Amino acid sequence: MRYLSFLHGGEASFGCVTEDAVTDLKKRSGLSDLASYLAANAASLGKESGLTPDYPLADIRYLPVIPNPSKVLCVATNYWEPGGEGGERPDYPLTFSRFAASQTGHGEALLKPDLSEKFDYEGELAVIIGKAGRRVSEADALSYVAGYSCFNDGSVRDWQKHSTQFTPGKNFFRTAGFGPWMVSADEISDPTGLSLSTRVNGELRQSNDTSRLIFSISWLISYFSQFTLLEPGDVIVTGTPSGFGSTRSPPVFLAEGDTVEVEIGGIGTLRNTVISDSGSV
Amino acid sequence: MRYLSFLHGGEASFGCVTEDAVTDLKKRSGLSDLASYLAANAASLGKESGLTPDYPLADIRYLPVIPNPSKVLCVATNYWEPGGEGGERPDYPLTFSRFAASQTGHGEALLKPDLSEKFDYEGELAVIIGKAGRRVSEADALSYVAGYSCFNDGSVRDWQKHSTQFTPGKNFFRTAGFGPWMVSADEISDPTGLSLSTRVNGELRQSNDTSRLIFSISWLISYFSQFTLLEPGDVIVTGTPSGFGSTRSPPVFLAEGDTVEVEIGGIGTLRNTVISDSGSV
Repeated sequence: MRYLSFLHGGEASFGCVTEDAVTDLKKRSGLSDLASYLAANAASLGKESGLTPDYPLADIRYLPVIPNPSKVLCVATNYWEPGGEGGERPDYPLTFSRFAASQTGHGEALLKPDLSEKFDYEGELAVIIGKAGRRVSEADALSYVAGYSCFNDGSVRDWQKHSTQFTPGKNFFRTAGFGPWMVSADEISDPTGLSLSTRVNGELRQSNDTSRLIFSISWLISYFSQFTLLEPGDVIVTGTPSGFGSTRSPPVFLAEGDTVEVEIGGIGTLRNTVISDSGSV
Repeated sequence: MRYLSFLHGGEASFGCVTEDAVTDLKKRSGLSDLASYLAANAASLGKESGLTPDYPLADIRYLPVIPNPSKVLCVATNYWEPGGEGGERPDYPLTFSRFAASQTGHGEALLKPDLSEKFDYEGELAVIIGKAGRRVSEADALSYVAGYSCFNDGSVRDWQKHSTQFTPGKNFFRTAGFGPWMVSADEISDPTGLSLSTRVNGELRQSNDTSRLIFSISWLISYFSQFTLLEPGDVIVTGTPSGFGSTRSPPVFLAEGDTVEVEIGGIGTLRNTVISDSGSV
């Protein structure tokens, strides 16, 4: 089942998508947001029955899949490139975090800050947590997953280098696309082998698949749960393949009017168009 | 006025403290949490009248001042040491973030993970944002502050060094004391010159004052607001003076039974005792 958060008639809600229609699960459940719905229905996701559609899909505006996560845990890079397997894996990934305010929904504008000319894309698989856990084993890790989505970890490269810590460059306002929806884990029993590709204005820039993750989804869930409490609606952004703009030769960055698409097999395509942000939004 | 979040009879609430009694502002306002109260009352904090006390202060358990901040922005170190002024200030501070799950309230246990023997304290001044803002000027910055509190930026030093990014070591479950309360900004018109001291088992370990911050409170608010949207209830943790355990000679770390106090002039004293955490809490 595809779950999403959205605006309808200006009101924030959440629900699920069947064909080209949306069923409003906020009205039906009385719960405030999709994270709360995941917490209450972790064991029965994808098994709802008797759902009737409320709105055509064309009538909603997409919000980030989880508009208000307690935490967004991200890792840098994380893919073996072709021929790269068997290289030396570092002991630990580079772990950083994003605030909810840095996210935007499918089809909404991606904001390139006018403070920088180094705005870059990173197509990634996002994992959404469905139940709370600490010190989760790798063997149990996937049972904590509610579902999967597409994420564009939009990065402002010069601000990312203000210090050793990535925080500023990874947290500009509405620089990360997250959507269009979450596909529940019952439809993706094995999240390895999902194809991932990123296109800018239709040109393929990144292409890999999740069987080539250096740190696997299960490993990341287990590692993060050693230090923090994982909670329903938490988001783990699993890292990006090569081909992002700052490492191209010559480097190429996003400009106003560019369209970025992140497509993941079995999930769908996240699409955002870049506009310039002067801070007045 | 002193504002706080608390448990009374097992129920989460928030309010203000007069003498040794608490007035429950959740009951009176109908708002869900202190961050929402700050948003609704930014201009009138400290000016409430006709408040009658509901509970003796001794009957509540303290929660972190803001239990659910949208963001906790932290900077590393950030004090000129005696004789250190006039040294070269870096262009930017090291900026990292903490998740809400890493916080704990005044008087509650500070959890030393059994996964590490390098659990350290860092006494700091916390700034709580009262109104939303982007691209705030340094001149206007203090008008965005709701109030000030004490913070112990508890750090697990070996996990902080898993990569260049501090995230894991700064986000262990319930490793940061935050409280006991927020003193509203109307009582602290100038937040420079507040004395800050940290004691472990009564022994003075850190001592400085906020006139010696390398990056000032106004500078930090302005800088952070260039990239993110500051929102009511957001927390800015302004960095620590020298004297934390890992830089002492020889290094000294926190052990079960240790009591850490962070005292800031005009605010009060945050006190937490360390217990060992095996992940079962």
